[in-house]
Amino acid sequence: MLKIGIVGASGYSGVELVKLLLNHPEAELVKLYGHSSIGTKISDVHKSLRGLIDLQVEQFNKDDLKNLDLVFVALPSGEALKVVPQLYEAEIKIIDLGGDYRLSNIEDYKKYYKHDHSSVDLLSAAVYGLSEWNSENIKNAKLVANPGCYPTSIQLALLPLMKNKIIKDEFVNIISYSGTSGAGKTISQNMLFAEVNESVRAYKVGVHQHIPEIKKYLEFFSGSNVNFSFVPHLLPATRGIYSTISVNLKNADIKSINNAFENEYSNSPFIRLYHSEIPELKDVVNTNFCDIGWIVDENKTLVLFSAIDNLIKGAAGQAVQNMNIMFGFDQTLGLIKCTEKKW
Amino acid sequence: MLKIGIVGASGYSGVELVKLLLNHPEAELVKLYGHSSIGTKISDVHKSLRGLIDLQVEQFNKDDLKNLDLVFVALPSGEALKVVPQLYEAEIKIIDLGGDYRLSNIEDYKKYYKHDHSSVDLLSAAVYGLSEWNSENIKNAKLVANPGCYPTSIQLALLPLMKNKIIKDEFVNIISYSGTSGAGKTISQNMLFAEVNESVRAYKVGVHQHIPEIKKYLEFFSGSNVNFSFVPHLLPATRGIYSTISVNLKNADIKSINNAFENEYSNSPFIRLYHSEIPELKDVVNTNFCDIGWIVDENKTLVLFSAIDNLIKGAAGQAVQNMNIMFGFDQTLGLIKCTEKKW
Amino acid sequence: MLKIGIVGASGYSGVELVKLLLNHPEAELVKLYGHSSIGTKISDVHKSLRGLIDLQVEQFNKDDLKNLDLVFVALPSGEALKVVPQLYEAEIKIIDLGGDYRLSNIEDYKKYYKHDHSSVDLLSAAVYGLSEWNSENIKNAKLVANPGCYPTSIQLALLPLMKNKIIKDEFVNIISYSGTSGAGKTISQNMLFAEVNESVRAYKVGVHQHIPEIKKYLEFFSGSNVNFSFVPHLLPATRGIYSTISVNLKNADIKSINNAFENEYSNSPFIRLYHSEIPELKDVVNTNFCDIGWIVDENKTLVLFSAIDNLIKGAAGQAVQNMNIMFGFDQTLGLIKCTEKKW
Amino acid sequence: MLKIGIVGASGYSGVELVKLLLNHPEAELVKLYGHSSIGTKISDVHKSLRGLIDLQVEQFNKDDLKNLDLVFVALPSGEALKVVPQLYEAEIKIIDLGGDYRLSNIEDYKKYYKHDHSSVDLLSAAVYGLSEWNSENIKNAKLVANPGCYPTSIQLALLPLMKNKIIKDEFVNIISYSGTSGAGKTISQNMLFAEVNESVRAYKVGVHQHIPEIKKYLEFFSGSNVNFSFVPHLLPATRGIYSTISVNLKNADIKSINNAFENEYSNSPFIRLYHSEIPELKDVVNTNFCDIGWIVDENKTLVLFSAIDNLIKGAAGQAVQNMNIMFGFDQTLGLIKCTEKKW
Repeated sequence: MLKIGIVGASGYSGVELVKLLLNHPEAELVKLYGHSSIGTKISDVHKSLRGLIDLQVEQFNKDDLKNLDLVFVALPSGEALKVVPQLYEAEIKIIDLGGDYRLSNIEDYKKYYKHDHSSVDLLSAAVYGLSEWNSENIKNAKLVANPGCYPTSIQLALLPLMKNKIIKDEFVNIISYSGTSGAGKTISQNMLFAEVNESVRAYKVGVHQHIPEIKKYLEFFSGSNVNFSFVPHLLPATRGIYSTISVNLKNADIKSINNAFENEYSNSPFIRLYHSEIPELKDVVNTNFCDIGWIVDENKTLVLFSAIDNLIKGAAGQAVQNMNIMFGFDQTLGLIKCTEKKW
Repeated sequence: MLKIGIVGASGYSGVELVKLLLNHPEAELVKLYGHSSIGTKISDVHKSLRGLIDLQVEQFNKDDLKNLDLVFVALPSGEALKVVPQLYEAEIKIIDLGGDYRLSNIEDYKKYYKHDHSSVDLLSAAVYGLSEWNSENIKNAKLVANPGCYPTSIQLALLPLMKNKIIKDEFVNIISYSGTSGAGKTISQNMLFAEVNESVRAYKVGVHQHIPEIKKYLEFFSGSNVNFSFVPHLLPATRGIYSTISVNLKNADIKSINNAFENEYSNSPFIRLYHSEIPELKDVVNTNFCDIGWIVDENKTLVLFSAIDNLIKGAAGQAVQNMNIMFGFDQTLGLIKCTEKKW
Repeated sequence: MLKIGIVGASGYSGVELVKLLLNHPEAELVKLYGHSSIGTKISDVHKSLRGLIDLQVEQFNKDDLKNLDLVFVALPSGEALKVVPQLYEAEIKIIDLGGDYRLSNIEDYKKYYKHDHSSVDLLSAAVYGLSEWNSENIKNAKLVANPGCYPTSIQLALLPLMKNKIIKDEFVNIISYSGTSGAGKTISQNMLFAEVNESVRAYKVGVHQHIPEIKKYLEFFSGSNVNFSFVPHLLPATRGIYSTISVNLKNADIKSINNAFENEYSNSPFIRLYHSEIPELKDVVNTNFCDIGWIVDENKTLVLFSAIDNLIKGAAGQAVQNMNIMFGFDQTLGLIKCTEKKW
Repeated sequence: MLKIGIVGASGYSGVELVKLLLNHPEAELVKLYGHSSIGTKISDVHKSLRGLIDLQVEQFNKDDLKNLDLVFVALPSGEALKVVPQLYEAEIKIIDLGGDYRLSNIEDYKKYYKHDHSSVDLLSAAVYGLSEWNSENIKNAKLVANPGCYPTSIQLALLPLMKNKIIKDEFVNIISYSGTSGAGKTISQNMLFAEVNESVRAYKVGVHQHIPEIKKYLEFFSGSNVNFSFVPHLLPATRGIYSTISVNLKNADIKSINNAFENEYSNSPFIRLYHSEIPELKDVVNTNFCDIGWIVDENKTLVLFSAIDNLIKGAAGQAVQNMNIMFGFDQTLGLIKCTEKKW
């Protein structure tokens, strides 16, 4: 039974982690650390946990760590830099759900995250946790940098085509829509219900912190360069990310496209494929699935669709999948998985 | 052409006032006062106003007032107490959309609003602005206390029956649901989209500040005492209030009920009646209408339904209706009204 | 391993049953019967099931039944009357999620369901499946009439107080709000997104088919008579029921109320209590929990709040709970339950 | 005072037309024609019209027409082909809100609308009603083909750049999101609240009937060819269209872009510009505005944003704007317009 701590338990990703881990047969939640809700029971912070767990939120204290096998860190950017080095030094395995250990280029980090990086020496130790593409490295990782929600939805859709050179030097157009839980529980006027409901807006065009992450790992896992634009939008829904990715192909061979997806994901229990079909966001909400569909239109434009739950496959669910890989369990332990892979 | 100022222009009621007054043939917006957005164009605070108005939000300054005929005050509770006395002294007519001048009993004010009242001497000058029931007094008022959103929806439904002694000493059960714009633009974690969406919750049961207001004016306009419970809820919608009011009648004569409503509201251009029918919230959103329906079930329980737009009939629209009454215009000027009153 | 069939698998309750049973360690789904989608894979009817199950929807055929231990029936009113007798005759255990076997009074059935009852002789065999209040009878039942969604939410809140004579002859005022999935997948103009969104409406006031069911079992389990009005509303949300129940008590002793709830539900793993607190709908969505809160205001009005997921505790979840009871499993098997009952 | 009829008054565009025309100083609604609701008062079909209008829905009858100056046709595709020729023959001016008279290429019509065109001879008489770009022709039109909702949002954003050769032969990537009212009141399972809410899905990729309309008039008004892909999506909101249009420019000169928009729209009272800013959908809902914003990112990708209310600027509002142009009124009569055009 793994003894587990969570730093940042009271955010939206934190509570998903708690729920997933309570349901996991090999995990025991031992410590919950937080900031604004220290001394409060986590089940009073998130009433949905009432009756399920009796832990209080505590101040992080490195002296507690000796009993822990793994700590999940779910903190805003910059905050993990204060905690992860202490955990690493204490030889606790770490899965960081934030963005602090995903980029190796410090200049990119400063430019997009808008502050300095105080833990540069650990960057080389961090393993990017895109479970379907990096499981061999994750197995032996001490520090996993769990992918961002947008990057997960985008990389899972593009990588099979880039790796198989179906997308080569074409420009890639990425439009994504995210539910509001992606912005976390931090209060801000523009996340009030009356500001989001019955509306839509793009934001952070060209400056979103996920841009260098998307680029880095698309290129890393495919071995090819990529040029793209990425326009994130806020969706009037609580959960989920829906990415529509368009590529004007020179040669659009639907069979090669089908084959690329089938071959890459034949053994991936959380990937569901829609050949010449369009997935819907609601079908992945509350699951660890990534539903990927594709259509080639008359102009040889390939349109890819990728749907995930931003808090699960885009955060806590993939983190548990990575925990399973790190500790030698079946990667689906404690998660609902595909058992039928007949496309 | 009336010269008009608004204090508190950047809140949700404020922007509705701006829109209604821009569309009003006898009103000219001259001054917009605010707090957090001083120096900003109101059309940058509310992008929906872009292109419609060129005024900036300014710091309130009593030396400006000499040019104004009327000032609307749309401030949080307690804030109006600082502004209204200055306006009153300057002999500007005032319509206060907040709760500071609705109660005459100071103890009730302190108990429900949870702070002191520093402008007690003006309370006797304030006229309650329930347009359909108090127009004679509103005509000559210098200071109108515009009703709260819940009280408007509830009083308009109950008064015809109380005045006509159809409801006498029966206990009245009031359940109301409000869209989130009722809570204003003040940020708070529990008004985030992800906290309100796909949910419902009651709040302030037995302690809501509208309780003494509901009681006072039900009794004032009907001449009868009333006992009731009031349970407000938050609805996952931006606008509107829907009140479901149940009374277990001793004698339930549907004809008398019908007559009471028809007689009281035959000349009310903003009241629409649903005899033995149920109104829907969406049909009043973005209007100054109050839709009232009623059904008597087999147990002689009378169920009343009352639907308004909380920001219009429950705030800015009724305020403009009151402005019209105060300045001798037709009460519907600048507002969409009923022209067909065939029930 | 129980071999299980579902009749009516393609509705909203049907798909929830499929999901819960796929996750249940002692259940094997063997047959899915339907009507409009015969010949289609259930994972094509509900894309959320893609990859999880390979069964097709078939025409109901009583010759299949010999291999089945239990059949869940999730059909519109009247349709179950054609299927349940065949299952009963074949000595298959049955859990009917519809309303056809909940009432023993045929006149009530005709009046509220608006058609005849063709299976009267089985009514005496049916056991009402309110798990928390009838488990002894459910254990030995051949045919369980699973409770309606509104009755579940209302009875669980009222029964502890009625049984303990805290509510006696007072009139009970029940206002409920349901998400739209309660209306099923049958198409109708007034359930279109654009008709429901940003709105609220009451419906079927005084004539809802759950009225006699609420009355019958409140009286059956409490041993007391009850008079109430019930006003159901449609909520702009997909899932959940929120009931606000007001009773003007003669004697309102908060300690007795607290005790009644604590005593009745101390061993109920799906009931969560909120003493002098208000539950929120979102905290029960996607769970089998019923969250019950209560407040007594200054007028001695007791206000009860009860929140459930209409498709889970109000349908498929309680059905699985009843299956567990019928077959001698722990009632929580396959469902998330409370482990901490410290109020 | 124009005497006006509406054919298809009971749909969502129909009711918006009714509301706009009731508020128009030079229009008198005389006849409302429909199909499924003949004999019903329009205020019973749309309760939001209660008290505002006393007309019944009637069967279309060409003998009525002599008194009419103008008829709006708001019918599903194919249905207008039966009505428009009769109106045209009777020399009534016509504004058709549907797609039947927008394309001149019959093969395109058959391919995208999937049925024959029985009124080919009138196609040459039809004038495309994109008000901002075709007002000279609209002035003298007998039959105006009012633009589709998606084409309106897309053409208004792209035309200034295409006409000014800022976009030349670059491929244009168009992603649009529409509220559900765009699908009309026709019932279908996939437009139920529970199917749309908390979800998103693309649809009709590469086959949407607006594709040839977008292409035809982009080329017609700009004098340039264009290649694009168009991916429409369904948004969990009632009203509005939000288009995000990406073009990877060879030369991206922000000043030229700014100038193109400012010059083309300096006198357009319904166009609001956001220089290097992002508009939000909610700010145009319930208005005839088209809000257009643009950003050029580091990769020289130009991202355009265009927001309209699909039922107003995308249907009934633009139709009234066209009526104003046809009859020599100021184009803004009866509509709220920009008075301040300081960008």
